[in-house]
Amino acid sequence: MTVKLTPTLELAFDLMQRRSVTPIDAGCQQLMMDRLGAVGFKHEEMRFDDTDNLWSRRGTEGPLVCFAGHTDVVPTGPEGNWTYPPFEPQIHDGLLYGRGAADMKGSIASFMIATENFVKEHPDHKGSIAYLITSDEEGPAKNGTVKVIETLEARGEKIDMCIVGEPSSTTDTGDTIKNGRRGSLGCVLTVKGIQGHVAYPQLARNPIHDVAPALAEMTAETWDNGNDFFPATSFQISNINSGTGATNVIPGDCVVTFNFRFSTELTAEILKERTEAIFAKHNLDYDIDWNLSGQPFLTSSGSLVDATVAAIKTVTGIDTELSTAGGTSDGRFIAPTGSQVIELGPRNATIHKVDECVEAEDLNILATIYQRILENLLLDTQ
Amino acid sequence: MTVKLTPTLELAFDLMQRRSVTPIDAGCQQLMMDRLGAVGFKHEEMRFDDTDNLWSRRGTEGPLVCFAGHTDVVPTGPEGNWTYPPFEPQIHDGLLYGRGAADMKGSIASFMIATENFVKEHPDHKGSIAYLITSDEEGPAKNGTVKVIETLEARGEKIDMCIVGEPSSTTDTGDTIKNGRRGSLGCVLTVKGIQGHVAYPQLARNPIHDVAPALAEMTAETWDNGNDFFPATSFQISNINSGTGATNVIPGDCVVTFNFRFSTELTAEILKERTEAIFAKHNLDYDIDWNLSGQPFLTSSGSLVDATVAAIKTVTGIDTELSTAGGTSDGRFIAPTGSQVIELGPRNATIHKVDECVEAEDLNILATIYQRILENLLLDTQ
Repeated sequence: MTVKLTPTLELAFDLMQRRSVTPIDAGCQQLMMDRLGAVGFKHEEMRFDDTDNLWSRRGTEGPLVCFAGHTDVVPTGPEGNWTYPPFEPQIHDGLLYGRGAADMKGSIASFMIATENFVKEHPDHKGSIAYLITSDEEGPAKNGTVKVIETLEARGEKIDMCIVGEPSSTTDTGDTIKNGRRGSLGCVLTVKGIQGHVAYPQLARNPIHDVAPALAEMTAETWDNGNDFFPATSFQISNINSGTGATNVIPGDCVVTFNFRFSTELTAEILKERTEAIFAKHNLDYDIDWNLSGQPFLTSSGSLVDATVAAIKTVTGIDTELSTAGGTSDGRFIAPTGSQVIELGPRNATIHKVDECVEAEDLNILATIYQRILENLLLDTQ
Repeated sequence: MTVKLTPTLELAFDLMQRRSVTPIDAGCQQLMMDRLGAVGFKHEEMRFDDTDNLWSRRGTEGPLVCFAGHTDVVPTGPEGNWTYPPFEPQIHDGLLYGRGAADMKGSIASFMIATENFVKEHPDHKGSIAYLITSDEEGPAKNGTVKVIETLEARGEKIDMCIVGEPSSTTDTGDTIKNGRRGSLGCVLTVKGIQGHVAYPQLARNPIHDVAPALAEMTAETWDNGNDFFPATSFQISNINSGTGATNVIPGDCVVTFNFRFSTELTAEILKERTEAIFAKHNLDYDIDWNLSGQPFLTSSGSLVDATVAAIKTVTGIDTELSTAGGTSDGRFIAPTGSQVIELGPRNATIHKVDECVEAEDLNILATIYQRILENLLLDTQ
């Protein structure tokens, strides 16, 4: 099967050839500025520490519709494990292979072609279009979207509606959009024991023995049952480490890292209280370090959801599903400003993996959907 | 309080200044050879791989009474955590501080002074005295006592009675001797899961979640109630490690190291069966690697026990207790040859810890007890 290299795919190739592993942008944003500048966008480069960010806007009126995303990609791991070199994008059997194909240089290419086509057809559209692009979404996320938003907020510049290009689709492009995200609450727990010799347990206190039943109870707990918009809150232990390496020493402490992805049925405070109640019940002696990395947010309805659902139906015939499942995204920094936020992008099955890929045709479909969303939102006649 | 530096304490100082962390001997055995050679011992240095071992014997007749022990010490951990530098032995308030004070350079110094005094007073004692000294007791114990015993067995040289200098006492020197040891069964358990993203637990299988309730059950289990000679079998987890370091990744496996110290009420096979039944009940997917490092052994009565009990009573007035509790020792390698084996040494409260120490006077008492044991066993008039 030969795939025609559409403008969307050509642009995706151009972006994917750049080795923009977090926080390196590798010229992706310059390429975007060149293209967007040609259709009337005014740019503002916002570099914070090691991170390149771009705020680019066309128009001064409201409503302001923003495309948000990131030019950075996750590391490739050993490149020899890839079937095709990760920074040499190529199409085989209809699939576009390469790091960033799905997350999310493909989406950015589709954003751009949608925007170019829309602006060329409707140079006098109402409202404004903007791009909020960072190069640290896959990393610590400290010098990216969160700082751009702070800058905009400080000067009273408000995004009304935001489309984040994260890969949201499951089986078919557009079958799922994310209209919110669960909260994310992390914790590093250090259970303290008393080191000793395994042959004299009465002189020691084994922190692994102390924590095991508490963790068993945590994993068996039903934290909530979710609600109409959110799946049930989930608890996952990501790391546990204890021991000196010696087989005859009872260790002095045990460090456990865990994470809640939580619905709007709960708050971070309630989760902390219930967790610490379990630890108290098991008489743990512990230190605890909580990290709330995102409150849950939700765009349950409104003009952006309506425009997006309608655009997907028009272009693909699909009745899209609204979902709040899955990982965090930079949407968590944008939603608190009052903006409507949805995430729409290609299928996410291969993200962060070896041989990341998308159906090449899906990027063309996405470009058409994005363009249709702009038409639905920024043309008086719609 | 000023403590007089007896020959025993002077020799303990000399040994403790040597940084003989396993398997390094650091000249301790050379010092022993110099001293023992001066009172008629013939040495045989047996180096196996990285381990220095010493077999030294005075006399050719039976019975052969052997002092067994080790010149190596466990690591100090950060030396800044010690009140006094661990390899600069010093006495404060009557306590001799330093790594090896209790385990077991103090015992070796007491062995030596007891031997020197006994031989000087009774140069024509009956039987023989030997030293079996290794520098890897605290480590893998692969190239130490076990190999020396193999060498002796191969040439038909039999130890009749063996005094191991491991710290056996609890509250007062000589209040407890070990006349046997529990078995030791180790295990490395690898629980297999499926790696994934914490936000998509339905696509992964968390091995920490799988193993936590199984470990909780293992720690709550009563394995047996011991018997007249052995305390109840104990279970201890020494190490648990799982996780990629990332906080958003469900790990692919979890490795747990644990150990049973078991009585003669159970066998290693029974422990394996009961353990694997618990893992099966919790549906673990796992690999398991068992390591039987010692069968339980017992010297319930005989001339060595009698001579030792009597010596302690004579020197201290204490009716000593026979015990099989506590850790393994190299006695496990000696007992299977048919030798009577007891362990007698100072108090063990601080072994393997920061600020390891013994009452300085206790080493003098120990030397007197050891000398009395030799008198009880190797003089016709006793």
